[in-house]
Amino acid sequence: MITATILTIGDEILIGQITDTNSAFLARALNKIGIKVIHMASCSDSKSDILGTLKRCLRHSEIVITTGGLGPTKDDITKNVLMTLSLSGKWVRSQKQYNIIKNILQARGIQMLDINRQQAYVPENCTVIPNRIGTAPIMQFHFPKERFGKDNLLFSMPGVPFETEFATEDVIRAIQAHYRLDKIFHRTICTFGIAESVLSKKIESWEDSLPANLHLAYLPNPILGVRLRLSIYGIGEKEGKEELDKYASSLKAILGDAVYGEGETNPQTVAGELLLERDATISTAESCTGGYLAHLLTEIPGSSRYFWGSVVSYDNSVKINTLGVSPNTVKKYGVVSRECVKEMAEGVRKKLGTTYSISTSGIAGPTGATPGKPVGTLWMAASGPKGTVTATIVSKSTRKINIERFAASALDLFRKSLLAGKI
Amino acid sequence: MITATILTIGDEILIGQITDTNSAFLARALNKIGIKVIHMASCSDSKSDILGTLKRCLRHSEIVITTGGLGPTKDDITKNVLMTLSLSGKWVRSQKQYNIIKNILQARGIQMLDINRQQAYVPENCTVIPNRIGTAPIMQFHFPKERFGKDNLLFSMPGVPFETEFATEDVIRAIQAHYRLDKIFHRTICTFGIAESVLSKKIESWEDSLPANLHLAYLPNPILGVRLRLSIYGIGEKEGKEELDKYASSLKAILGDAVYGEGETNPQTVAGELLLERDATISTAESCTGGYLAHLLTEIPGSSRYFWGSVVSYDNSVKINTLGVSPNTVKKYGVVSRECVKEMAEGVRKKLGTTYSISTSGIAGPTGATPGKPVGTLWMAASGPKGTVTATIVSKSTRKINIERFAASALDLFRKSLLAGKI
Repeated sequence: MITATILTIGDEILIGQITDTNSAFLARALNKIGIKVIHMASCSDSKSDILGTLKRCLRHSEIVITTGGLGPTKDDITKNVLMTLSLSGKWVRSQKQYNIIKNILQARGIQMLDINRQQAYVPENCTVIPNRIGTAPIMQFHFPKERFGKDNLLFSMPGVPFETEFATEDVIRAIQAHYRLDKIFHRTICTFGIAESVLSKKIESWEDSLPANLHLAYLPNPILGVRLRLSIYGIGEKEGKEELDKYASSLKAILGDAVYGEGETNPQTVAGELLLERDATISTAESCTGGYLAHLLTEIPGSSRYFWGSVVSYDNSVKINTLGVSPNTVKKYGVVSRECVKEMAEGVRKKLGTTYSISTSGIAGPTGATPGKPVGTLWMAASGPKGTVTATIVSKSTRKINIERFAASALDLFRKSLLAGKI
Repeated sequence: MITATILTIGDEILIGQITDTNSAFLARALNKIGIKVIHMASCSDSKSDILGTLKRCLRHSEIVITTGGLGPTKDDITKNVLMTLSLSGKWVRSQKQYNIIKNILQARGIQMLDINRQQAYVPENCTVIPNRIGTAPIMQFHFPKERFGKDNLLFSMPGVPFETEFATEDVIRAIQAHYRLDKIFHRTICTFGIAESVLSKKIESWEDSLPANLHLAYLPNPILGVRLRLSIYGIGEKEGKEELDKYASSLKAILGDAVYGEGETNPQTVAGELLLERDATISTAESCTGGYLAHLLTEIPGSSRYFWGSVVSYDNSVKINTLGVSPNTVKKYGVVSRECVKEMAEGVRKKLGTTYSISTSGIAGPTGATPGKPVGTLWMAASGPKGTVTATIVSKSTRKINIERFAASALDLFRKSLLAGKI
């Protein structure tokens, strides 16, 4: 099996100023084509440190991907280290990258300086993968087995997450072109609201029936639920996809409406798709989620086509005056109640004139428990032309995670209620 | 200088399922007491891998901190590896951790099983730092110079970020008790709205005046602005603090209202403090921030004392019908305009009956530009009993970062306008 090491370069990582998200992103991309990441590491912007770490990594795994240390300023020295490591005799200019740099600076109204020009120069022994959205090119080096004991590919990528993510596809393609990798095909089924242990019990006999070349991975996420990834090896594309279709279908039949989507999706994306399909609109009425539910819906580009707005009613006066919740309901049942979220959802739907609505009211914590309502209690409702559905959960975590879980749970209630024809 | 390496253990890191936030958190805490983190690494849940990596780390730096691999299930083997590495003869039970485990399980209504009991057992050569909020204890090992060439401390911490963060203070205290560290004192000044390059120009002569034992670090953050950390070494506590006070005061005098706070704060925390001091309330009217501004304000525990609510008016009908923006304004100036955000802020303040209000309207992207209003344009307003202040910025980033910057900028406009007596 071809293995990889991911190395992030930069003092800002080691002092904790930046949380490294590139490594996880790259690891997922490598994992998907059947390459095992065996190590991740971070080192400082020091020549000896980068060089030593790179050599160690190249001896341990075929593929090494570095991110960072490619900026135009003096403290970024990765390229100089690669010049040494690759035994390149001279610097050569990548005309493609040079043109990109020129265009980027022009668009920003900045004059091109020597330090910008230098970004287009690379060690001659490398292959350039142009960075289409940034100034630092991606450099690809090949080291034959004689150098470090393995048929190595080394990629140097920029540190800006946006640029790294954008260029990952090109790097993956270069890896696939170089190594003879086992063909591998995936299907990822996203579930919500079932704990990992319960899920594994539920699909036990299905899992036992899987053929030897079909692998199941549990990918739990504290907010988004458990994703189940099916991977099939050593088979042609057509047959592989057919096999995956077959087992994905039987899996989905067992799990029913706990499955909310496939691949890299999330509850807000699915909610948006359901609304677009129906040419429908939505609004939210939020107490404990404090605007986070609206934020999730609006983080999707184009969400203005279906999301009309939200009334965040943190104070009871807003629930009563703006959403039309009855003061009696508040008095009799409290605001964290089935009755209150029902009136909130129906109130915002009417007020904003949307097809559907979602509401939340709960206790995010860390304090605020009342008798019978522990911290982490959520009441939620989804409402539409056919009626209103309510539900409750208890999330035992931090305030931050409780809020995120509350919002995801409310979106899931909306999806289930809509697909069941209840709202 | 005492150096440290941080090692995260777990397959879930290497497949990219989890983004490691523990390392950055620990690095910041170590950095603050003058310990340099020279490497970070991640390895798999394999005995030989953990053992090999640990030995290498211990030879390179005095302090090694691991996180993860301490769960009760079979795949978590860190503790067994530490048994081998520490040459401990036997397992001993930590009575303190045992009691904590018992209480945690009891609170969750779960019966204590053998795998839970085992979590309280540790190699006899370690010192236990009880994990007060989780079941896996923190283990501290001391290896004299004879073992790995350095006077080593090794800490094994749980992988759950919440637990790691909670226990970090105890680990830092143990490190300070063991090594003779140079005393180091800090002051961190948080600025908003000035680019790093402009900032460094502005404080150039002040920076040149700093004594040799006073170090300035720039800590830029794409959302929260640049924090300036002053650190003073080799001086007593009283004198050190006096020196810091002196230089922090002169720095703040130069930067004026660009300084929004000190230490680990952020614009929403500062806004909350200003409101509590004045016994005042606030509401928001949001278009492009889509609820994110309300979310920031409500992520602070206790925010219900001053945050009344928000109207997220994504659709123009909500701006007009719920916030009372004049249809003429929308027609004449568009919704991304000074006039519109002014009416939004004044509308929500009146409607929700709060002392102050903040509003946003802009183009988060990736599309939506109109003539004269590029993607990333934000108009914002802050309103109060003394009047309404408006402002505009252009943020050139992704949709996600634009939204986050918009919200932080609006909070900053509120702070500045309030302190200037304009609202």
